Amino acid sequence: MTEAGIGAGDDRRPALDVWFEFASTYSYPALVRIGPLARAAAVRLRFRPFLLGPIFKRQGWDTSPFVIYPAKGRYMWRDLERICVDLGLPLRRPPVFPASSVLAARVALVGLDVAAGAAGEGAGWGEAFCVAVFRACLGEGRAIDDPAVIADLLSGLGVPPEPVLAQAATPAAKARLREETEEAERIGVFGAPSFVTADGELFWGNDRLEQALAWATRRA
Amino acid sequence: MTEAGIGAGDDRRPALDVWFEFASTYSYPALVRIGPLARAAAVRLRFRPFLLGPIFKRQGWDTSPFVIYPAKGRYMWRDLERICVDLGLPLRRPPVFPASSVLAARVALVGLDVAAGAAGEGAGWGEAFCVAVFRACLGEGRAIDDPAVIADLLSGLGVPPEPVLAQAATPAAKARLREETEEAERIGVFGAPSFVTADGELFWGNDRLEQALAWATRRA
Repeated sequence: MTEAGIGAGDDRRPALDVWFEFASTYSYPALVRIGPLARAAAVRLRFRPFLLGPIFKRQGWDTSPFVIYPAKGRYMWRDLERICVDLGLPLRRPPVFPASSVLAARVALVGLDVAAGAAGEGAGWGEAFCVAVFRACLGEGRAIDDPAVIADLLSGLGVPPEPVLAQAATPAAKARLREETEEAERIGVFGAPSFVTADGELFWGNDRLEQALAWATRRA
Repeated sequence: MTEAGIGAGDDRRPALDVWFEFASTYSYPALVRIGPLARAAAVRLRFRPFLLGPIFKRQGWDTSPFVIYPAKGRYMWRDLERICVDLGLPLRRPPVFPASSVLAARVALVGLDVAAGAAGEGAGWGEAFCVAVFRACLGEGRAIDDPAVIADLLSGLGVPPEPVLAQAATPAAKARLREETEEAERIGVFGAPSFVTADGELFWGNDRLEQALAWATRRA
């Protein structure tokens, strides 16, 4: 899923920024679907995990709107269930909803930053890690705030967990996630997943994935 | 668009309840699209205008979430613009958003109730009125809380406005809309448009129209 061996500089494919939050339920089908769709459309993805919590907080919400508004929450789970059935995806609620996604997001950024700076084939594990987190959290109901679960997912990708977890705990890694979250809010992202084209067009929701890819390519 | 001449009793087509609010922006493309799609799918529609205001109020909102959360509101208008461009629909913001939809909803229920009780061809004007209100409000930016605008729309459908407006102002008409709104909330409707199949499956949003029709027919 990574684009190893192609530096962003030589890459003429249209780009699409993929903003998502590991606690966001609709980000799960979107992240599972986006790899093959983007390859078919010849769109270069940039995965941008961020935190919705601080953005929600400024809207006066101290948790997910799906918790604050029960009718909306009940609907979301049923809607997601239908979506997952159609896609043949497993769905299992995590032990706590919304999941605490800080650790997963910091680790993901470590992996994605490695991929962005890497030239060698297979150097990047960031995108595969992101998909693995969603499959673990919402496909298997695992607790993604548990470092042991994150370590397990890294090991499954052939990545030694200890140095990555250590790097994700540094002030630099914390600052990186904070900056990404601020950037998301700055460009008008208010939910996840959100897709942003090179010309700044914003599309919100798993439902808008195909439209975002089409927009990215028609403007190329 | 009405199903004149076919009593609901003899009608074997699967049914779909269409819950909408005249101030709801996404109800506009949904209501314009639904007639032809339902005919093609052989689905019998029941139009159910209601008020989101009282439901929002119980969620702590005193206006549209698109007003309360500006980033979401900006996105909605842009998203709606893209949808309308794709459909070849005009889009013009009403003088006040959200529009006050009480009058239009009461009048619509008068027309829809006439249609439901009528046997003769062409007796019902309720569905055509609903579509006309959306085209006026969001296609032309007209003030649908203005009785003169509503009268004009009725006249355009060949319906003498005065008796209808008088009927819509009766305590019975007010109670009817209140009951419909309570029923919407009771069955879990929290936004508009929402589609509910005969087996109680709820679909929310213009994006779910095709899925709702497919669900209605596959369960038939």
